[in-house]
Amino acid sequence: MRTEIATLGEFGLIDRLTEGIKPENESTRYGVGDDAAVLSYPSEKQILVTTDLLMEGVHFDLTYVPLKHLGYKSAVVNFSDIYAMNGTPRQITVSLALSKRFSVEDMEELYSGIRLACQQYHVDIIGGDTSSSLTGLAISITCIGDADKDKVVYRNGAKETDLICVSGDLGAAYMGLQLLEREKTVLKGEKDIQPDFTGKEYLLERQLKPEARKDIIEKLAAANIVPTSMMDISDGLSSELMHICKQSNAGCRVYEEHIPIDYQTAVMAEEFNMNLTTCAMNGGEDYELLFTVPIADHEKVSQMEGIRLIGHITKPELGCALITRDGQEFELKAQGWNPLKEDK
Amino acid sequence: MRTEIATLGEFGLIDRLTEGIKPENESTRYGVGDDAAVLSYPSEKQILVTTDLLMEGVHFDLTYVPLKHLGYKSAVVNFSDIYAMNGTPRQITVSLALSKRFSVEDMEELYSGIRLACQQYHVDIIGGDTSSSLTGLAISITCIGDADKDKVVYRNGAKETDLICVSGDLGAAYMGLQLLEREKTVLKGEKDIQPDFTGKEYLLERQLKPEARKDIIEKLAAANIVPTSMMDISDGLSSELMHICKQSNAGCRVYEEHIPIDYQTAVMAEEFNMNLTTCAMNGGEDYELLFTVPIADHEKVSQMEGIRLIGHITKPELGCALITRDGQEFELKAQGWNPLKEDK
Repeated sequence: MRTEIATLGEFGLIDRLTEGIKPENESTRYGVGDDAAVLSYPSEKQILVTTDLLMEGVHFDLTYVPLKHLGYKSAVVNFSDIYAMNGTPRQITVSLALSKRFSVEDMEELYSGIRLACQQYHVDIIGGDTSSSLTGLAISITCIGDADKDKVVYRNGAKETDLICVSGDLGAAYMGLQLLEREKTVLKGEKDIQPDFTGKEYLLERQLKPEARKDIIEKLAAANIVPTSMMDISDGLSSELMHICKQSNAGCRVYEEHIPIDYQTAVMAEEFNMNLTTCAMNGGEDYELLFTVPIADHEKVSQMEGIRLIGHITKPELGCALITRDGQEFELKAQGWNPLKEDK
Repeated sequence: MRTEIATLGEFGLIDRLTEGIKPENESTRYGVGDDAAVLSYPSEKQILVTTDLLMEGVHFDLTYVPLKHLGYKSAVVNFSDIYAMNGTPRQITVSLALSKRFSVEDMEELYSGIRLACQQYHVDIIGGDTSSSLTGLAISITCIGDADKDKVVYRNGAKETDLICVSGDLGAAYMGLQLLEREKTVLKGEKDIQPDFTGKEYLLERQLKPEARKDIIEKLAAANIVPTSMMDISDGLSSELMHICKQSNAGCRVYEEHIPIDYQTAVMAEEFNMNLTTCAMNGGEDYELLFTVPIADHEKVSQMEGIRLIGHITKPELGCALITRDGQEFELKAQGWNPLKEDK
């Protein structure tokens, strides 16, 4: 079934997509339906704001990304930025621009993914904008969250001797992308062949349906740990470490042997004949948390499940380096995904 | 001079565009440079959030819109939504996606318009996202503002016998667009001819460099008037009146003879052989304020410069109608700009 969006118009489409949305958060006073949404936060909270603009053909490829997954991921990557400030996401606005190629049902699919993410993370959809584009789909999401005034964590607070920690494992989302890209090339034009992804489910899930590390933020709070600096890993560990070090006026040493990597990632890297550490350091889209804690928290963090100590902060003069398994030092370079750099 | 964006990369471009930005508002605690911006509002304020996504070829045509004007307008239309809630805009995030056609200098032009608007209205740029697109330019702006808790004005509070007021004049922005579209057609391919817009400056200004009605919000506050309902006129007076009436469960009568129209708009409509009232009722992009006040405020509002009483709110059964100069009643129809409706 295909209903043309033109038959509903902008307001009809918005009504249909936002039907039955009920705010869950006390801070949401008025959502969709006026010139602006209305929020109310107690004064002991700081308010966090982050935004993302995703363009078809640059940030996602609809030949292998289902619209529902795309919606889910678009929302979750914004939640991840709020958690990375040690906050809790509360509201999002969703703006879509779509070409005539898309039907009302397509938009419902996309929106169902966004709504599912919002349900899972208890975030309210409070507004947005729906419009047309000449080509492709554009998705712009702004997320608003809150944090206790003295608990906001920036990128600029890392201090010499602080421990560098990372949640989960790295490189899997990137390997998932390689896998999908390969299947796309292999299967081009042969529509009936279903690619076999057995044993690679984790990689696909990491690429297509990432989660934001709400659980880690909760664990840190429960253990009374406030990181000295934190950010989420969207462009690759190398790039993010360099941001933290630059903004904290510090250097760092991270150890190859401590970089957390899943088994499937390792298998896939071998199959693709790629350097595993490079994938983990520069892969991007992991949406794991990278943070630093004072050395006094060593015992606490080393006991926390799902968190790995990968190195430590140094004086700025020492620069940022990776220590390989055989003890060599390599200066970190931000080779992560950069949408505005020259094509390779 | 043309610097390719690829030579700077995402972070280089952001650094260049946001250089020297200093927050003006106390509520802005941390702007560009982390996973999220950090704001802090006192608890007696409600927080307002609005967002817009503008796509090249749909919302703007760079053959006649200078990038600086585009930036200015993109910001101002968001401020307008915050004023329309009886609030004050305080922060914006700016997301841009651009194709290789654009240079660093182009983006500086665009950004200089956004920054100028922010200066004029005392709004802080607190973040955003900069990325590439396969074709064209996409601009997504989210604006955050505040209002006293008991002063937020929604669309749904209009009551029977309330007076309907409008600021400024209507239809000029639409006539400006017609004028630019005509010149574009006439001059296609003839680059050296400069169109003569003498005597039509107001129309062009209304289209290319609209302002948000901060002054009206201030006047209303000074006169101790809190409208019962309000919105800004972006899609045309007819369409907006119908929103207010639908959401307030009311009807309305507006009088053709009271619709405020500028002399240049009238001259242009005649030149184009268009119905002037239709242009004023459905033209869109005026960014004037449409609001209702209790009849007890009649004297106060009728003395306010720049505000016109155009009609009154009725019981819902009476529907929404325009009363023409010769006393006929016409049911209002939303013929305003609707980017998702079928092409004409």
